[in-house]
Amino acid sequence: MIEKRDIRALQKIVGSENVKDDRAHLLAYSYDATRERYEPELVLFPRSEEEVSQVLRYCNQHRIPVVPRGAGSGFTGGALPVKGGVVLALERHMNKIKEIDLKNMVAVVEPGVLNKELQRAVERHGLFYPPDPASQEYSTIGGNVAENAGGMRAAKYGITKDYVMALRAVLPDGSIIRAGKRTIKDVAGYNLAGILVGSEGTLAVITEITLKLIAKPRLSKTMMGIFPTVTQAMEAVYRSLAGGANPVAMEFLDQLTIRAVEEKFHKGLPTDAGAILISDIDGNVEAEIDYQIELLRHHFQENGASAIQIAKDQEEAANIWFARRNASQAITIYGSKKINEDVTVPRSELPRYLEEVYRIGERYGVKIPCFGHTGDGNVHTNVMVDGSDPAQVQRGYEAIEEIFKVTIELGGTLSGEHGIGLSKAPFMRMAFSDEELALFRRIKAAFDPNNILNPGKMGL
Amino acid sequence: MIEKRDIRALQKIVGSENVKDDRAHLLAYSYDATRERYEPELVLFPRSEEEVSQVLRYCNQHRIPVVPRGAGSGFTGGALPVKGGVVLALERHMNKIKEIDLKNMVAVVEPGVLNKELQRAVERHGLFYPPDPASQEYSTIGGNVAENAGGMRAAKYGITKDYVMALRAVLPDGSIIRAGKRTIKDVAGYNLAGILVGSEGTLAVITEITLKLIAKPRLSKTMMGIFPTVTQAMEAVYRSLAGGANPVAMEFLDQLTIRAVEEKFHKGLPTDAGAILISDIDGNVEAEIDYQIELLRHHFQENGASAIQIAKDQEEAANIWFARRNASQAITIYGSKKINEDVTVPRSELPRYLEEVYRIGERYGVKIPCFGHTGDGNVHTNVMVDGSDPAQVQRGYEAIEEIFKVTIELGGTLSGEHGIGLSKAPFMRMAFSDEELALFRRIKAAFDPNNILNPGKMGL
Repeated sequence: MIEKRDIRALQKIVGSENVKDDRAHLLAYSYDATRERYEPELVLFPRSEEEVSQVLRYCNQHRIPVVPRGAGSGFTGGALPVKGGVVLALERHMNKIKEIDLKNMVAVVEPGVLNKELQRAVERHGLFYPPDPASQEYSTIGGNVAENAGGMRAAKYGITKDYVMALRAVLPDGSIIRAGKRTIKDVAGYNLAGILVGSEGTLAVITEITLKLIAKPRLSKTMMGIFPTVTQAMEAVYRSLAGGANPVAMEFLDQLTIRAVEEKFHKGLPTDAGAILISDIDGNVEAEIDYQIELLRHHFQENGASAIQIAKDQEEAANIWFARRNASQAITIYGSKKINEDVTVPRSELPRYLEEVYRIGERYGVKIPCFGHTGDGNVHTNVMVDGSDPAQVQRGYEAIEEIFKVTIELGGTLSGEHGIGLSKAPFMRMAFSDEELALFRRIKAAFDPNNILNPGKMGL
Repeated sequence: MIEKRDIRALQKIVGSENVKDDRAHLLAYSYDATRERYEPELVLFPRSEEEVSQVLRYCNQHRIPVVPRGAGSGFTGGALPVKGGVVLALERHMNKIKEIDLKNMVAVVEPGVLNKELQRAVERHGLFYPPDPASQEYSTIGGNVAENAGGMRAAKYGITKDYVMALRAVLPDGSIIRAGKRTIKDVAGYNLAGILVGSEGTLAVITEITLKLIAKPRLSKTMMGIFPTVTQAMEAVYRSLAGGANPVAMEFLDQLTIRAVEEKFHKGLPTDAGAILISDIDGNVEAEIDYQIELLRHHFQENGASAIQIAKDQEEAANIWFARRNASQAITIYGSKKINEDVTVPRSELPRYLEEVYRIGERYGVKIPCFGHTGDGNVHTNVMVDGSDPAQVQRGYEAIEEIFKVTIELGGTLSGEHGIGLSKAPFMRMAFSDEELALFRRIKAAFDPNNILNPGKMGL
């Protein structure tokens, strides 16, 4: 419980205008994209790393939980203060792009910078920051790093961890640590940045992030293939990737999703198709793009594509992407409530995974449309239920548990993009052994011996 | 001290033919590429993960140091048993390529597989494993992972950590842990693979490694530029990379190195040049290669290159690469003993770094030829001394210490490729704060509470 003297002490550190405990603030910082609610006792808006350090030192001494928060757009409750305490809101003041270093091709940012804002800023210099979670317009880089966010471009360009070159962070005892360098190669000391990425605010509060940038490709092209079955579509994916295709994105929609988009938007999609693949290719030279397109076309045809469309211009490309971009909205025809998971399986297992998912859907009497990233095996699996029918909602959650089991059996992971947070914490024992969970706890204690940082998350 | 009953217990685990304590074995496993010597008390050749687990459990219970070892080709003493105990030699039995999975484009290997052996095996399937440390013909993947090895192709393709998708490892208490998945995206639990990579055998014994593969580019081309000064060469590097050039390698030789190669091999190199840049470009399409070559040519010319050569065939390419490949041998004209370091600075700081290094060379009366990877700022800095003159050798080591100071001041790292091990341990306090070192120790204890795994390394 936070007391008056705690508030006074924290006001001294961050300034009283940056300490809020009114109803409006406690409510505003009580939820994230999960729509679950846990009110903090206090919201703090630190202005600097030094203030973060002092706040943490105080809270550590007084055993006050601290939950770092960016935009609160997470899907697993990572930013929810489930044990009360302080929400450390980094988006208000610690939101500067500190440097775009053209010579070393890195950007140095504070955690509260928005993903898209960074993308735009570096693109003005002809550079490119590839990670593009669907939340890119409003999620913060700090949150992206804490959750190791993915995105559509992962197949070619990787995910957040592949761009984090260095971090500054504050430990619960207030000490400021640096991890990594502005160099591709750095093998001195343990790879702290490696373990801080994806640690969901449980190990340290990240205060500065140095990100690798690459040169922005000059050209891109979009194509689509329509397949009788998911298995054929996936076969086309493996073959083209192993054959040298390097698409930025390689997205798929399954039959249920295709039908939903068609029913809702009447785009002329073939509702008897088993799967649609949508792919973006990028590069600097027309001939390279053509080469890639030909590779894909070849493997699509070899694997039974009934139609292939190559966008002639931006408008046609946007039209192809329409189905994928609106899939999430369209599938609400199957149920008012969506229980969606971002499980990921080795891409070779995608056909089997989908078969199992549909079987589970039948067993529980729910529709489970799937779409997502075939390039990296990340499937947005949407269990659609009638939100006003508690029995069906319950069945939906039971179906999810089955789906997690299948995922683990197929060598997959509970989460490809969203993290564990609160929502997936109950399933950690399904995915990890006792020894692995014990190791996670010892690592947590090595950083945060009093368990004040984002307590109650990740099933630890 | 290992006793007779320990030997008997360990013989039971791995079989008596796989336990050696004769002079020849103790000597053979007492050194690495540093040429320092520390004899183990026992050499074990485990045949499986299960045996590794049992050996560790026993040694942990009896507080016997265990040093995992691949080829023993490390440059910093990582595989030296400085506290005696057991060398766990993984190259003899645990050296299989277990799987090359074409659909997911991963290879699953035991730690004792040689780097080049893996490269060759995957290339037979049209795939590519890019990390290519200079030791690739004889170093093991396990050692590469433990040291997070780099190589020439890092500028475009990254280093070992960028290819490690999953690991299996054994903790000192014998528990077997899995980290990561056969998927690009996996954000469930802490990123254990992230911290195990580069941990130099101090946290766990790695027993299986799943590596990302990519498609093998079909074409490549080599070019060379000759520059009046290092600063101009480096300016050409920044500009071309930011402008979209994506060379596989972008190597440089400084004036001292150029002169040494010329004196030794008479290749017609311009001995008044300040620097030579050598670059490899790869891709799938001629037009893409041409585009890249033109970009480089443009930026080389804009930045004062006095000559540019583009190899017409393999023979010309080999001829261009001759100078770089033989640099290490050539510079022995400056002294019989080479004290070489693999420091890395942000590439923008390379010209200043080199200036400082030459100044240090003058001050200590030693020649310090430099060459290396401009793309990633990794400079092989070679302090050449007369090995028969103890005073000069001493001055050489003093110069190295100065060089480390400059490196840290310029935002660089003590090691870009070789790790800390024993050789650089004394300098850890220069690079890390007390708080950072304390955190390293707590992480070490979270994995290895009794400090049996490779004790005495990394300055911990």
